[in-house]
Amino acid sequence: MTARPSLEKDLAALVGEAGVVARDDFARFEQGIRYGGAGRAAAVVRPASVEQVRAVVRYAYAAGVRLVPQGANTGLVAASTPDESGEQIVLSLERLAGSPVLDPAARTAVVGAGTRLSALNAAAEPHGLSFPIDLGADPTIGGMIATNTGGARLIRYGDVRHNLLGLEAVIADEEASVVGDLRGLRKNNSGLDLKSLLAGSGGALAIVTRACLNLHPLPRQTATALAIPVSHAVLPELVRRLEEQAGEFLTAAEGMSKNALTAALRHAPQLRNPFGGGGPPDYALLVELCSTAGPDSGVDVEQILMGVLGECMEGPDALLSDALVGRGGELWAIRHALPAGVAAEGQVIAFDLAFPRTALPAFRAEMTAELARAWPFLKLCDFGHLGDGGDHFNLVWPKDAPHPYDPAVVLQVRDLVYDRAVHGHGGSFSAEHGLGPYNIDYYRRYAAPADQAAAAGLKRLFDPKGLLGRVAF
Amino acid sequence: MTARPSLEKDLAALVGEAGVVARDDFARFEQGIRYGGAGRAAAVVRPASVEQVRAVVRYAYAAGVRLVPQGANTGLVAASTPDESGEQIVLSLERLAGSPVLDPAARTAVVGAGTRLSALNAAAEPHGLSFPIDLGADPTIGGMIATNTGGARLIRYGDVRHNLLGLEAVIADEEASVVGDLRGLRKNNSGLDLKSLLAGSGGALAIVTRACLNLHPLPRQTATALAIPVSHAVLPELVRRLEEQAGEFLTAAEGMSKNALTAALRHAPQLRNPFGGGGPPDYALLVELCSTAGPDSGVDVEQILMGVLGECMEGPDALLSDALVGRGGELWAIRHALPAGVAAEGQVIAFDLAFPRTALPAFRAEMTAELARAWPFLKLCDFGHLGDGGDHFNLVWPKDAPHPYDPAVVLQVRDLVYDRAVHGHGGSFSAEHGLGPYNIDYYRRYAAPADQAAAAGLKRLFDPKGLLGRVAF
Repeated sequence: MTARPSLEKDLAALVGEAGVVARDDFARFEQGIRYGGAGRAAAVVRPASVEQVRAVVRYAYAAGVRLVPQGANTGLVAASTPDESGEQIVLSLERLAGSPVLDPAARTAVVGAGTRLSALNAAAEPHGLSFPIDLGADPTIGGMIATNTGGARLIRYGDVRHNLLGLEAVIADEEASVVGDLRGLRKNNSGLDLKSLLAGSGGALAIVTRACLNLHPLPRQTATALAIPVSHAVLPELVRRLEEQAGEFLTAAEGMSKNALTAALRHAPQLRNPFGGGGPPDYALLVELCSTAGPDSGVDVEQILMGVLGECMEGPDALLSDALVGRGGELWAIRHALPAGVAAEGQVIAFDLAFPRTALPAFRAEMTAELARAWPFLKLCDFGHLGDGGDHFNLVWPKDAPHPYDPAVVLQVRDLVYDRAVHGHGGSFSAEHGLGPYNIDYYRRYAAPADQAAAAGLKRLFDPKGLLGRVAF
Repeated sequence: MTARPSLEKDLAALVGEAGVVARDDFARFEQGIRYGGAGRAAAVVRPASVEQVRAVVRYAYAAGVRLVPQGANTGLVAASTPDESGEQIVLSLERLAGSPVLDPAARTAVVGAGTRLSALNAAAEPHGLSFPIDLGADPTIGGMIATNTGGARLIRYGDVRHNLLGLEAVIADEEASVVGDLRGLRKNNSGLDLKSLLAGSGGALAIVTRACLNLHPLPRQTATALAIPVSHAVLPELVRRLEEQAGEFLTAAEGMSKNALTAALRHAPQLRNPFGGGGPPDYALLVELCSTAGPDSGVDVEQILMGVLGECMEGPDALLSDALVGRGGELWAIRHALPAGVAAEGQVIAFDLAFPRTALPAFRAEMTAELARAWPFLKLCDFGHLGDGGDHFNLVWPKDAPHPYDPAVVLQVRDLVYDRAVHGHGGSFSAEHGLGPYNIDYYRRYAAPADQAAAAGLKRLFDPKGLLGRVAF
């Protein structure tokens, strides 16, 4: 882009003065909230309607200016912040956030892209409904669609794509065409499924402006426990047994390593230590069962959970050495404290891996041994979503390590872990965080050439001038 | 295509003599098994490997010959049979049907496109698993992916796209490139989601050769009942209550009209009439609850079902006038006998509609009145999947009608019903049967221009010469 002194004036003519952010207030749009990456914006524009989004896209198309769509900016791969050039416009969708339009009997909600997950759930709760994608941050719905957020309860509810009944999105052609619909059909095969393609495309194919989402009945009972496996190797069989005997009730099976638990309990002393004096075990699984059935239905998920875990502790082939029933809130507080706890131990080399879930133990065993040989000072503080094969295989470079933090070594570590995960164990290098500048090099390395070629074609189709987002495809 | 006397010889060179069907045996490939449409094939080729599929596609690309991918040929919109020109090659995938490769602890199966649904379920059953897409036919997995089959238990398990963990597909570029993967990841956002786009594309974007599918634990208990609503208007509220109180157990809520039930019971006298002497009520709902929990878990789905239905019969605002517990097999036999029963009454004008499910009663009331005015001799024999808004709004032109069957009137009826469904009530003209010659004109009429333009671009991207399938997009 050439210097464009009139940029802010041009944008104000399209979206009004209130829609153009003053330069002094750029910081929160230029810097990710949870990911450290930051860049410099040419402008920050906040359209208040789909038509205003279209006007901005038409302007960008004509001028050849690049746009970075942004929701709550809580992503972890730097996909929603501008680059260093100072030539990209941040297109914040936060003003597309009117009240969700609910149809309780249809279990649907039509929401603006800028609506926060918490706001949607606050609107749904009085109707006994929720949008049960569970994660640590409070993103916007548009951002969740762009990232295809998964979270801790995917095993029961699926990811965002599974719960997307419709969307409205602006593509970056000359007319800034609007694609999609908001009818909320649960069964529809009257054309190609554009919505599923746009979900997870990271703002690089289109700008989501509204969506129709599938809500779920709120559970009326929940049971939570910490299961202590006899070894990491038995985890796939443990998950299989949980599914076999409590299939429709199982909402979470979150793995937590000793190092991650120790870090969380140290960093957040208000947490109750559920393990007593002995400290955390080598590995623990947070298991949650829920039911929409009330207590008078005969369904008792706590009894079911105790039954399954009890069976898993019996006999010579026991899968569990122990199981601790706990208050759900307390156990989830520990789970949610893991990332901050781990971060407090040193510098985190973060991973968001996923595997065919039977492959997880072999990867972990092999990788642990290999890392111990090459960089014995690195501390594995992993945790993850075992039910869906997700593994935040986070490594900490401790504050008291014998070597100072070295980005060149970090790069070697990342290369090694990703290589083993993808090539050695059929894994994914980005399970739920999507693609952005943080990991795009690995897309180039691992995605099959034919898949990359198809993706490049899709990018040209929806965004012929390459104006949208941070991922070129 | 110009006359090509060497066609069969050329194909035999690519796939062997056994892969080329003799002209005398064309009939079953040229004529749909359940849909009456038929055409004429230039050749029928049955490759036995992905590489043979690629060879055929490369040949077709070079020669400019069109290919119609075909599974079990059980589709209902003529998408898998050749046109009348005699110039299209039927590409049957039925030989890509080796044994499914199961990973029970991962709950996944890798299957060839030609594998029958029944064969997959036979392989999964000993492991306590199933692929629970339930429908009247026995299609191939490839055909189910191409159609994105929904079926009667979508409300619990989702459609094929929801259960597709990976695929391998050949696109119609010069190299016959292979896209996709079969790793079976449940959480993966490391690129654009090609598989979800190809699902439901009706063989017009790519030829699916293998897939990795999400299996589900088999239920260990089931309860089934016929619920008799006080009116059609209460159906959305009834489904809402079922979901609220038996959310995770609800596997089916199938609506059946009096005319459809009467036809089925008349046509299949071996069926037990569950309604006693009085004959079927105006409308009935087949409700099924299932649980993976065994009987010793405390969960009793029959008790839960009775509880919910009992509540729905109480008080001045009762939703149900009656509820009949039944043997599941007997009730499903009636449900599955509806299409043949209706067909025996005369000529069927078949519809596969879907609505936002709260819109169904208004559509039905309005449409019934309008049809009665214009064509009082047409008999509505509708049934459908109320949980997901699906409605097979089938009309019968009775054998004893005052006017002989008239295709011009049928066209008027179809136009009217589709217009009211799509424009009047936010519905879909093809809920689960997909797109083919039978309904493609309505795609042109109803799909938004921007969506059609995007679909046309996708078609050009994956199939630049327009060689694949029966839908041009």
